[in-house]
Amino acid sequence: MSVEPRLMANAIRALSMDAVQAANSGHPGMPMGMADAATILFKEYLKYDPKEPNWHDRDRFVLSAGHGSMLIYSLLHLTGYARPTMDDIRGFRKLGSPCAGHPENFMLEGVEATTGPLGQGFAMAVGMAIAERHLNAVFGDDLVDHRTWVIAGDGCLMEGINHEAVGLAGHLKLGRLNVLWDNNKITIDGSTDLSTSEDIPARYRASGWHVVSCDGHDFDSIRNALDEAIADPRPSLIDCRTIIGWGAPNKQGTSATHGAALGDDEVAAARKHLVWDSEPFDLPEPIERAWREAGARGGKVHEEWRARLAANPQREEFVRRMEGRLPEGSAKGDYLDWLSANPQNVATRKASEMALEAINAALPETIGGSADLTGSNNTKTKAQAPLTADNYGGRYIYYGIREFGMAAAMNGMALHGGVIPYGGTFLVFSDYCRPAIRLSALQNVRVVYVMTHDSIGLGEDGPTHQPVEHVMSLRMIPNLDVYRPADAVETAECWALSLARQDGPSLLCLTRQNLSQLRTERTDNFCAKGAYRLRAAKAARRVIIIATGSEVETALKTAEALEGQGIGADVVSMPCWTLFDRQDDAYRTDILPKGVLRLSIEAGTTLGWERYADLSIGLDRFGASAPAEDLFERFGFTADQIAPRIVAALNSGVK
Amino acid sequence: MSVEPRLMANAIRALSMDAVQAANSGHPGMPMGMADAATILFKEYLKYDPKEPNWHDRDRFVLSAGHGSMLIYSLLHLTGYARPTMDDIRGFRKLGSPCAGHPENFMLEGVEATTGPLGQGFAMAVGMAIAERHLNAVFGDDLVDHRTWVIAGDGCLMEGINHEAVGLAGHLKLGRLNVLWDNNKITIDGSTDLSTSEDIPARYRASGWHVVSCDGHDFDSIRNALDEAIADPRPSLIDCRTIIGWGAPNKQGTSATHGAALGDDEVAAARKHLVWDSEPFDLPEPIERAWREAGARGGKVHEEWRARLAANPQREEFVRRMEGRLPEGSAKGDYLDWLSANPQNVATRKASEMALEAINAALPETIGGSADLTGSNNTKTKAQAPLTADNYGGRYIYYGIREFGMAAAMNGMALHGGVIPYGGTFLVFSDYCRPAIRLSALQNVRVVYVMTHDSIGLGEDGPTHQPVEHVMSLRMIPNLDVYRPADAVETAECWALSLARQDGPSLLCLTRQNLSQLRTERTDNFCAKGAYRLRAAKAARRVIIIATGSEVETALKTAEALEGQGIGADVVSMPCWTLFDRQDDAYRTDILPKGVLRLSIEAGTTLGWERYADLSIGLDRFGASAPAEDLFERFGFTADQIAPRIVAALNSGVK
Repeated sequence: MSVEPRLMANAIRALSMDAVQAANSGHPGMPMGMADAATILFKEYLKYDPKEPNWHDRDRFVLSAGHGSMLIYSLLHLTGYARPTMDDIRGFRKLGSPCAGHPENFMLEGVEATTGPLGQGFAMAVGMAIAERHLNAVFGDDLVDHRTWVIAGDGCLMEGINHEAVGLAGHLKLGRLNVLWDNNKITIDGSTDLSTSEDIPARYRASGWHVVSCDGHDFDSIRNALDEAIADPRPSLIDCRTIIGWGAPNKQGTSATHGAALGDDEVAAARKHLVWDSEPFDLPEPIERAWREAGARGGKVHEEWRARLAANPQREEFVRRMEGRLPEGSAKGDYLDWLSANPQNVATRKASEMALEAINAALPETIGGSADLTGSNNTKTKAQAPLTADNYGGRYIYYGIREFGMAAAMNGMALHGGVIPYGGTFLVFSDYCRPAIRLSALQNVRVVYVMTHDSIGLGEDGPTHQPVEHVMSLRMIPNLDVYRPADAVETAECWALSLARQDGPSLLCLTRQNLSQLRTERTDNFCAKGAYRLRAAKAARRVIIIATGSEVETALKTAEALEGQGIGADVVSMPCWTLFDRQDDAYRTDILPKGVLRLSIEAGTTLGWERYADLSIGLDRFGASAPAEDLFERFGFTADQIAPRIVAALNSGVK
Repeated sequence: MSVEPRLMANAIRALSMDAVQAANSGHPGMPMGMADAATILFKEYLKYDPKEPNWHDRDRFVLSAGHGSMLIYSLLHLTGYARPTMDDIRGFRKLGSPCAGHPENFMLEGVEATTGPLGQGFAMAVGMAIAERHLNAVFGDDLVDHRTWVIAGDGCLMEGINHEAVGLAGHLKLGRLNVLWDNNKITIDGSTDLSTSEDIPARYRASGWHVVSCDGHDFDSIRNALDEAIADPRPSLIDCRTIIGWGAPNKQGTSATHGAALGDDEVAAARKHLVWDSEPFDLPEPIERAWREAGARGGKVHEEWRARLAANPQREEFVRRMEGRLPEGSAKGDYLDWLSANPQNVATRKASEMALEAINAALPETIGGSADLTGSNNTKTKAQAPLTADNYGGRYIYYGIREFGMAAAMNGMALHGGVIPYGGTFLVFSDYCRPAIRLSALQNVRVVYVMTHDSIGLGEDGPTHQPVEHVMSLRMIPNLDVYRPADAVETAECWALSLARQDGPSLLCLTRQNLSQLRTERTDNFCAKGAYRLRAAKAARRVIIIATGSEVETALKTAEALEGQGIGADVVSMPCWTLFDRQDDAYRTDILPKGVLRLSIEAGTTLGWERYADLSIGLDRFGASAPAEDLFERFGFTADQIAPRIVAALNSGVK
């Protein structure tokens, strides 16, 4: 005898309200409101296999409204994923449970993305849908043929990033992306009428989306809408008209259910209203069984896919890419051989392009792009065809003026797997994508940010475009490797390190202006140590000058000037702080010993440099509009100005 | 004899292409494409008086597409503003000229906002239009009755923030906001077809805007569109169909004119094509005269307004508010008197609300708001009515889930003058508004950011919601005062300092969790020094514990534990680094002398604390989801764990 979907949905409701009540913290309203639609989706539509959560051809499901985390925890448990167990759910929002306040991809299989920061789950799903179509173009329907599903709330739709995500998805005609909008007309502050008057379906249609509405508590209506969404070649917004907190008789439909426990009385009232007699965290056997059957539905499809994979000539390459392993022999370094024989005095953004020519030829999994600064970020290599609605096999995305949307889409691509996304904008606009950079780091995904025009060295565009605090403040994001290479060789080395890293994002800070190539001997990857001695003192060492990026050349000139006065000066290039901090004591002490004056030069904020330096040459104010050389002169970044400061410091006994 | 508008527009074109050519850097395409529409706007519609650029009732004009800066420099010069002079324009993009690469409000009167970071000019204009309607509601048509005009490009419209700005303006029915969209179908990467398929007018209509189209090179068509926009009660998007670089015969209509000098040959060809015989930076006298007459148009209207102001009973209050002076006696501190007599052990977010009750009663110019976290940010005081389309006189804005749009709108309100905006979100989402916070600082505007839930102390919401790097990375933005108060008294003091500051933004980092009130004696505003000795060592001083916010209480407990072992410990509360750095040597040395172990405690990144501390207790990883007390325990923020670390450091002779 089949179990009514309502009863199955009520299991989600019960788990959600009970878990939130036990934690005395959380968001019961959304899971209770969307339980019916989610039940139909997981029972009848979504392609997945709880026994193998990472099946490469599974549908991706993203709970963009991440505060409703008990919805996904309930679904994963009910459909038979190994985790979360019922004990995990009992531990909701407590130390040690994988059932965190918001869903975290690194805590539970089946959680495809870390969500909670509103709008980003949706925008990551766009990236997943791009990756799916791209891999489909490369590997064919037999191996890659799945959909991306999203549940999003009004918050996700009101955020600015939604405009970017919707625009990108509509432009690329991502028909396999289907978004269920939890249209409950409630936000934290109260009715949506308080803050918005938008005709949301009209906006979506204006960007090339298909929109269909349903009663989010009527199962046939939900099915019809999902069927229509699947049939339509455009990305679909499924407007699910729901009641927040459905089932809580006194609080449903109000913002009181949004972000707080219902309270013992209302939980009891809901039990009565839903005719739900079980104790908290206890499930009636027939309902549990019905859910397990729903979860088992994908097993056969998975089996068939496995057979197709086994027979597919591209099998090994497909699996290699999905597992994120680089091709064998791709780290050979022919380009570095060539560079050491043919020094290039180019901007590091140009050096990045040159490195990418080699990388993109060797690694078919890279997908590049830029937020409308292709020619400035030097992100496109010659052989890259655009990835478009007519050619998903292309490997370059014109993201448009959508920095945040680009970054989130890259996160989604990396989460999907099979591709390595990189994308560019000006470093100052890293601020626009900072929330997504943080999520790259938190989610441990391999995304490479190509941030050019990395200091006042960009010149005339002036203070609105000149990064000052950016390099340092990006270094503060945990798990993000920030690189600021000093020349063409370091740029290639930093690229190699960024690609070799499987468990997190990297960010390259690159110059607009030309720099001399400082290393011409073929060596190991010195950047792998984070910092290294580029120049050893000739006279007795009295100062160590630490610098990054374009200031390394200045450091070398300063060292020469000091040596002319008999003052021995090391120059340490420090392209990546996090890598340096990971070296052993002996190495770090050798490079930066105590008892010698250490001075840093970096055309950005000095705050933070106290970690390594006794004195810092930097910029603690906004820049100005003028040619680069005038600005470096004006703000004191010349050997002529720095050398005397070092001499004065030595004479006054700073160290 | 009247001069054809085309000839007047060609003066803009000539100045723009010549200045960019002289700088060999800049963006000629936009000024040349929008010259015709801008000529009509400045000649016949815009209300302004070059003789008094800061006339309070002038129309506001924002060049949101700030890269086209030569458009506004040309217009200001031509209409008779004292600056830029022709020499200033010759110095375009060079050190010392106020004609920076992008328009900067602090360099030139008549530049209402600093633009260049795309989308923000438009969003600031929404704030200006809100301020206008609010002040109109307070002071009446006689004193406040002007429009806000914007020129925006495709980039401004494609950015995510545009969705937030459009939504807010439509919801608030800001009919006096009129946006001229430079619809030239070109972005930096090429045709807009590369990255977007959006029906822009449909999107605007979906948010309650009026849209009208015109041929941007046909003067009557432009006039008709402007007339229609003015007549319509909704905010208007004026779709100006233009040709980028109009007048450059070989390059117009292509992205080649967007961001680079045209080149000598094309400039010469354009001169021929436009029949423009004058030398660079030389203007035909009749054209110059026609422009001066256009600029003089507002003088009479201004005169009439001045007469109305003189006769208005609210004159003094209006001028006080527009000049940004606080009411006399408003800093008397009755609330602080009360607090010292009635200690409050509350979260600093709650303490902020309590301070705001006093502030909002004393300062009619404050306008509060929150990005849909009113009850969490504690930003609304009891007497505040919502500012809505039906009641512009209200003083609280439900911004919706639009953090970035809120921040930019606040910048616009502050730039407009007459109001002091403050607004809240969670500190972790300061990342969402970071680009606007940077512009608050660069533009020197008084905006107060109320950022609550300022550490792992927010507990269960987990790492997506827990700031780690935020406090420190905000400290790195030049000209931003970041406050992290330790209790109710410090919160009130930091609020007083934020409001007293006229020349820049402040940002308050506030707790979700309750804190003890640490000071019960009525004192001067100790926070004004940035850091102060909250507790003096009893035994011989061997350690100075520096802390901020919620960790100050932990520092006090740690000091007590140490004193129990005979180790004297100062505790320094350090709510604001920038204010501390501004104190004289004697003060700073007294508080943080050398030769004593200095240890910092802050539940965020340790990077940066090396500036003041020898050892740091902090958090250099993402947080976790659990109750706050469990997290503080887990991550080592308890006196029990910290005191032994200090003892060990003292024993090992760190200092």
